[in-house]
Amino acid sequence: MTEVDPLPTFADVEAARRRLGGAVLRTPLLENARVNERLGGRLFLKAECLQRTGSFKLRGAYNFLAAMTAEQRGRGVVGWSSGNHAQGLAEAARLMGVKATIVMPADAPALKVANTRASGAEVLLYDRVKDSREEIGRGIAARTGATVVPPYDHRWILTGQGTAGLEIVEQARDAGVTLDAVAAPCSGGGLITGIALAVKGLSPGTSVHSAEPAGFDDLARSLAAGAKCSNDRLSGSICDALLAPEPGDVTFPLAKALLGPGLVATDDEALDAMELAFREFKLVLEPGGAVALAAALTGKLPVRGRAVAVVCSGGNVDHATFARALARAA
Amino acid sequence: MTEVDPLPTFADVEAARRRLGGAVLRTPLLENARVNERLGGRLFLKAECLQRTGSFKLRGAYNFLAAMTAEQRGRGVVGWSSGNHAQGLAEAARLMGVKATIVMPADAPALKVANTRASGAEVLLYDRVKDSREEIGRGIAARTGATVVPPYDHRWILTGQGTAGLEIVEQARDAGVTLDAVAAPCSGGGLITGIALAVKGLSPGTSVHSAEPAGFDDLARSLAAGAKCSNDRLSGSICDALLAPEPGDVTFPLAKALLGPGLVATDDEALDAMELAFREFKLVLEPGGAVALAAALTGKLPVRGRAVAVVCSGGNVDHATFARALARAA
Repeated sequence: MTEVDPLPTFADVEAARRRLGGAVLRTPLLENARVNERLGGRLFLKAECLQRTGSFKLRGAYNFLAAMTAEQRGRGVVGWSSGNHAQGLAEAARLMGVKATIVMPADAPALKVANTRASGAEVLLYDRVKDSREEIGRGIAARTGATVVPPYDHRWILTGQGTAGLEIVEQARDAGVTLDAVAAPCSGGGLITGIALAVKGLSPGTSVHSAEPAGFDDLARSLAAGAKCSNDRLSGSICDALLAPEPGDVTFPLAKALLGPGLVATDDEALDAMELAFREFKLVLEPGGAVALAAALTGKLPVRGRAVAVVCSGGNVDHATFARALARAA
Repeated sequence: MTEVDPLPTFADVEAARRRLGGAVLRTPLLENARVNERLGGRLFLKAECLQRTGSFKLRGAYNFLAAMTAEQRGRGVVGWSSGNHAQGLAEAARLMGVKATIVMPADAPALKVANTRASGAEVLLYDRVKDSREEIGRGIAARTGATVVPPYDHRWILTGQGTAGLEIVEQARDAGVTLDAVAAPCSGGGLITGIALAVKGLSPGTSVHSAEPAGFDDLARSLAAGAKCSNDRLSGSICDALLAPEPGDVTFPLAKALLGPGLVATDDEALDAMELAFREFKLVLEPGGAVALAAALTGKLPVRGRAVAVVCSGGNVDHATFARALARAA
């Protein structure tokens, strides 16, 4: 029998915020009168696409590196990622003067690969279907003594992401609002479980929901089944940031304890949400960053008569994909 | 000899901020590590495209309506605008329960016209070349007793816009920075003179510069000549928000007293700045909202070795124009 760390708590999210200090942006919580009128309630967007590196991922990565010992930081870090964790980790490493090696899928958006390299990280590309990114990453760690920084399934990662949840509740309160529900995009569950810890700690009556792409709704199905389910595929959605195969060993117990039913959005619904974010909120979202917004706009996450916040988790989108979203304008 | 109001001062900008209260968003001041590295300095973007109604214009309009008497508000307001002032004024009127009539050019972006109507305002369209929007607006005011809310040339308007300048200096200070220069897009000069009052009041050593579209650089030429110059044309730039014919009677004396040399950006440079704002900052800018950023990116406003803030003043752009900007990606 192996000894298991206790699950992270609200206090760990507060500790993460102290570690982050001024390294991350307190992104705005945006509201739009026309959208509210159309939905019959109040919809708030947490604009994490404006976060440094274009997604929320800097929060968890920076928290992880700040929690390491100086001696560990001296041996460097290694990570694997479809792109946003790569950029967040590379930038956190740059800010702290730590050497970073990032294992990225060969079909990741070119922009994400280029941006990761621009932060000074070494990038290794792998085949999403044939290779195991974990094996490649752990091999590097074994050879170099570098610390593996996982994309989601670690207390320091998820509690770092959860700092966005502290801000959401506080910013809503500043607007005089107690939120009925909060939703966030979900891949392996680091963001949504961190946010759930934060939101439930500050506002226990607020329900918290994951949002996943159709066909990659492993968490929604796992929550319904009460046990971990896997996705049938590892690629095939435009939501390239949200293609983790199954919930994590740390994130799933938290998800079971804290989350309401999971939400699911199709690729077309994500593109429509990107178009609305462009037109009404002047935000650039990537498809995976728009799935929680899509759930609210399609009524899967009801807004009528309620106050709801959705995390718009990233904006690292290629020009061609954004043009597809623009073309869906009514 | 007519009696002339004294020019507005820094204290009037502070009074405007008290009037605005929580009605406007404190928009974020964004920075990007890659862009800074490329430019060799620190470039900050004041993201007023995220402001309610998609531009800074709510600040001035709300301040104007809040400064009116209740009796004046009861008779309604009338304004004329290429679009952003229209939306700002219509929304300010909606927030305060005031009837608004807006005179808009027939060639204004369809989105701006639709959004103005959606705020509950009555919209009258005019021909930008043949008609005088001032005559139409003043005629309505004479018939109905409504108060004319001018787009820029009024102390309550420009000091309301200036509240963005207070935020810029304070947000830069929070980042540990004293700004060397601030630039903002300029049409009739309400935004840039309000910002100059605020910035010079808080940080006298910071230079302040207008940015205008090529061919519509009336303020830059007026500053160089020491007297008001007009533009040759009233249309013909994609920067539809920045086509005022000449500096205002209130704004020009302030501009002469407070501004450094004016900056000018071509339409292509504005489109390139929109593409960079999309790619690196995840912001949707309209062409006119991007001209100060364009001046910084092209070196007309030097960033190397300095700390510079540019106002990204609006994001109300049609899908087709945004697609043109995306198509300019390198």
